[in-house]
This record gives sequence, structure tokens and C-alpha cells, in this order.
Amino acid sequence: MIFPLITESYHPEAVIIAGGDYPTHPIPLALLRHAKFVCCCDGTAQTYIEHGYIPHAIVGDGDSLTEEFKTKYQSIFHHISEQEDNDLTKATRYCMAKGYTSICYLGATGKREDHTLGNISLLIRYMHAFHIQATMVTDHGYFTPAEGKNQFESFRGQQISIFNFGCTTLYSEGCKWNTYAFNELWQGTLNEAIGDTITFEGNGKYLVYRTFNSK
Amino acid sequence: MIFPLITESYHPEAVIIAGGDYPTHPIPLALLRHAKFVCCCDGTAQTYIEHGYIPHAIVGDGDSLTEEFKTKYQSIFHHISEQEDNDLTKATRYCMAKGYTSICYLGATGKREDHTLGNISLLIRYMHAFHIQATMVTDHGYFTPAEGKNQFESFRGQQISIFNFGCTTLYSEGCKWNTYAFNELWQGTLNEAIGDTITFEGNGKYLVYRTFNSK
Repeated sequence: MIFPLITESYHPEAVIIAGGDYPTHPIPLALLRHAKFVCCCDGTAQTYIEHGYIPHAIVGDGDSLTEEFKTKYQSIFHHISEQEDNDLTKATRYCMAKGYTSICYLGATGKREDHTLGNISLLIRYMHAFHIQATMVTDHGYFTPAEGKNQFESFRGQQISIFNFGCTTLYSEGCKWNTYAFNELWQGTLNEAIGDTITFEGNGKYLVYRTFNSK
Repeated sequence: MIFPLITESYHPEAVIIAGGDYPTHPIPLALLRHAKFVCCCDGTAQTYIEHGYIPHAIVGDGDSLTEEFKTKYQSIFHHISEQEDNDLTKATRYCMAKGYTSICYLGATGKREDHTLGNISLLIRYMHAFHIQATMVTDHGYFTPAEGKNQFESFRGQQISIFNFGCTTLYSEGCKWNTYAFNELWQGTLNEAIGDTITFEGNGKYLVYRTFNSK
């Protein structure tokens, strides 16, 4: 598979806005404008509406929304109170039920760092267990979960990190430093693209982070 | 071991300020005021000095500092250009060489999320390979790496997450939901303390996150 660079002209099928930091970078903001379907996790709907939009759906337990807000937006508010899944997964299941299999996650980092860590690792779950093509876009770059052999569009000087989630072999082409099956998350950070494509080949799952800018 | 709550009255031996988001919460700011030794990772020295302080040491490759700044602070600037370690690890080695074995990390999250992920996982390395008592304090809570059986001071309603780094058994007492040897990082999030102590017992390494506030 070839994973393209994410730029302002990327038009995602479905976007889920999570309860972390609301995006400020032009690229995630453009994705939000171009998205065919926008689903907000609970309280983040308030912020999205303050930015002048109406989401297609609001999913969550309603904990962080006022009664007035819930009444006003009852036609798009989908109350899901089960406690096995966090709001990001509830929203993902909702989008899947709508038939979306390619989902872009915004606002999924920032604020509580345990949520950030959990949300990032959920991308692997969404790819592997839900068969979703998931991309998490932040104000600095984007995470893409993958497995097997894949190409990732890049540009010279783009900062790259790869996080190993269970590979015992993990090869790269097109990076400044060759990768291997890292045991620790920090070992795959601080790499860099040398040209316009990187190839990773792992015998399991991994997560690639690419920055918007070169160093 | 008993890991206390971190409050404004905690006086860490050594504090390392990394290049993520500079702290804004009263607790990390108080730790910074009370620290006996403050070491800045490269460019963050600039921000720390703008806040009216002078660090005891600045460690890094100097990439993000002007020549003028480096000349002015040459007596405390320690240039380390090797590329095996990131700035956080360079600063940690420097503090260890000074005899500090208890280190509090600030500004180690925020900005690039691959750095955040790398820095969080480095806490496990500092504990296990460097025998450092490491704590990472953010604007929302704090991460403590641990292994074996430990008590963590808590309060009713405190939000808790635990991240498993290699345990095959991982038990808890004092949490709303019992833990087990989670396979995925997201599985240990969204837990809560029911009283003033939590006990975790794992046959390997794990990382505990506690929030400053209840939900």
C-alpha cells in the first residue's frame, strides 16, 4: 500500500474530533473543512460548533454537555453510555456503522497524556481489529498504523518516527538511519526521510509518524 | 516502595526541562521554583531564562541556541553532539554524573507527539537501565515508572492509568477496575482511585499515570 503525504488538499471520508487539543494548524483545519462526514466526541461538539460548523453526529455519554445543548442537538446526538470503550472508539464504531472505513482522527492528542498515549495505541486496534484505514493528524504531523510492507510518501528532511507494535523484523528504505525491530518506543524516534518515498517492511504491526515540516 | 502524591510542596533534587510545552500548571511551576538543580535541554534554556531564572546547566548540541546566547552562558552550557541519545537522555546522563539519582522531568510532553511518546517510554529506561527514580510531571498529572510491588498515594476520584511494559501478571488494589497484564497501551487507561492508596504488583515494568484532579 502507498500512504500519501497529508496536505491541505486531502479530503477524508470521515473525520472524528476527539476531546484533546482542538486543531490550530492549517492542515488539520483544512481536512475538517473538506470532510464529508464529521463526528464529534462528546464535549468537543461544543468547540466545533463555536467554530461555526454543525457536526453530522455527536457521540458519547453526554457527560460534558449541558442539558440545553443536548436538547438543541438531539437529532444528531447519539448517547452511548457503555464503559468498555472510550469516546474515540464509540465514535469509530458509529462511523463504521455508517459505512465509513477510512477515518481521520483530529484533536486526539494534547491535554491528558494518558489519553494521548491510549488514543495513539488505539490506531493499531482500529487497523487490525476493525479494518479501518486510520490516520491521526495533529498540529505537528500524522500517525499512520500499518502492517507488512508499505510505501510512505515523504520529502527530503521530513522528520520520521516508527513505533514497533510486535514486529520481530522491521526494515526500512529511504530513511537516514536503518530501522530494526525496536524493543522500546523511543528507539524508533528521530529518523529522517532522505527522498520522496520511504518503505517499511515489518512482519507485524507498526505505527509511522511523519511531520508536516522538515527539521 | 511508596510513591507519594505530587503537590506544590514536593521538592525534587534535580529537574530537567525538555523541549516540549513549557509548564503552566501551578504544581510543575512550584517544583521548578523548589528544585535544587535545574538542567535545561538546549533551546528550552531560553524560555526558562525568560521566566526570570538561570539554570544550573544547559545540555544539548546547541542547535536551537544562538551564538550570542551560547557565548553569554558558556560557563553552564555543556555541548554534547553525539547522536545516539536524544536531549532528554543527554541531560539525564549529565545529572547522573553530578550524582543525582532522583530526577523530575518537566516540559517533556506537548509539541511533536513522536517526541512525547519517546520521552514517556524513556522513563522506563531511566528506571531500569540507569537506576534513576524518574517522575515526569505535566500540566495534567504525572507518570511514574515502577516494577514489582509498589504503593501509590492517591485520593478518591483521582484518574489513574497504568501502562504495561512487559509484565505477564499485573494486579491492582484500590482502583475502580482491576488491572491485568494488558497487551495494549489503551487497555490500562480510564481507571480511578477509590481511596488514598493504590497498590500495583507486576512481574515486570509498568508506568503509572495519576492526575492532579479528580474527574
